[in-house]
Amino acid sequence: MKHYPEPILKLINSLSKLPGVGKKTAERLALHMLHAPNHEAATLAADIIELKTSIRLCSICFALTDKENCNICSDPLRDQTIICVVENPTDMAAIEKSNAFSGTYHILGGALSPIDGIGPDDIRIKELFKRCESKKIKEIILATKTNVEGEATASYIFEKLKKVSSKITRIASGIPMGGDLQYIDQLTMQKAMEKRYGI
Amino acid sequence: MKHYPEPILKLINSLSKLPGVGKKTAERLALHMLHAPNHEAATLAADIIELKTSIRLCSICFALTDKENCNICSDPLRDQTIICVVENPTDMAAIEKSNAFSGTYHILGGALSPIDGIGPDDIRIKELFKRCESKKIKEIILATKTNVEGEATASYIFEKLKKVSSKITRIASGIPMGGDLQYIDQLTMQKAMEKRYGI
Repeated sequence: MKHYPEPILKLINSLSKLPGVGKKTAERLALHMLHAPNHEAATLAADIIELKTSIRLCSICFALTDKENCNICSDPLRDQTIICVVENPTDMAAIEKSNAFSGTYHILGGALSPIDGIGPDDIRIKELFKRCESKKIKEIILATKTNVEGEATASYIFEKLKKVSSKITRIASGIPMGGDLQYIDQLTMQKAMEKRYGI
Repeated sequence: MKHYPEPILKLINSLSKLPGVGKKTAERLALHMLHAPNHEAATLAADIIELKTSIRLCSICFALTDKENCNICSDPLRDQTIICVVENPTDMAAIEKSNAFSGTYHILGGALSPIDGIGPDDIRIKELFKRCESKKIKEIILATKTNVEGEATASYIFEKLKKVSSKITRIASGIPMGGDLQYIDQLTMQKAMEKRYGI
């Protein structure tokens, strides 16, 4: 791509560091920006800067926010006595999208993974325990991922909290809605059979 | 996505205006930037701004450049007596990548298209004529696209220039290298048969 002038090459290079953006896509994006209205490119640049300067973590649940506490923790309509424990903000976003939960969250910032050297002190488990001690919590929903690390993290938290909290639940596993049984993996099928319920 | 704080939503919105970037991809990119090192995001923002302020068109061939003349027009090793006429900078980039051409370019900035209201005065045909008059040009290669508009543009330029220039050529059409004959469309096959050459 050496035939492009330096400023275009620099932008292509920066863009291609984004996930899922290769040299070809970066080239297309850069040329698009070149022809886009000036204010559009300026807005994008400003938004990137604003993101990096204004986003912080909620002091209660560690969700992403631009204030001291996040919208959910400061919402009086949300049930502050129910905590849904998730690994990261995208998991929280997925639950919020479903509109199936009206309590609050606790974002761990990862999952236990001895193989990667991530122990209980590397994710926000202590902070969760502190929240459970200081406030009247009626239920803790463990919504960590359903892979090995997520399951291990859920077990660990359950073991530590079962003396303190009266009700600890785990988000349900099973056949996805609309899922075809023939394409379901063995583990999911085992879980779905094991957790079958009376109707 | 209303559960994200405002700065993230703003960036997602700006990113999703880019071609091929939907809401989902924009969300992923924004969250990536959030976790990327500060200098990486700052560089990207600065590169966008620099692109919009420093890129201009070469005064000779109308290629993208950050100087008065582009690298090719100011390169003494390029043959200034051969002009390859293309529709836009990406076409020029494609030819440059092939390393098959050592002359100069002329970027029209589009193709004739009566249906879209694009006539000879809307693309840089006049500027091409002026270049052909003022300098000793040995060959003009018409490398507009091989669609209807590109072919029409090539014909138009050929008709206007045939009195002035001694040698006007058209980039070859035919079966792409490595192309399987059974998947070639009818028009390309007709062209390939018509333009067959002795070996």
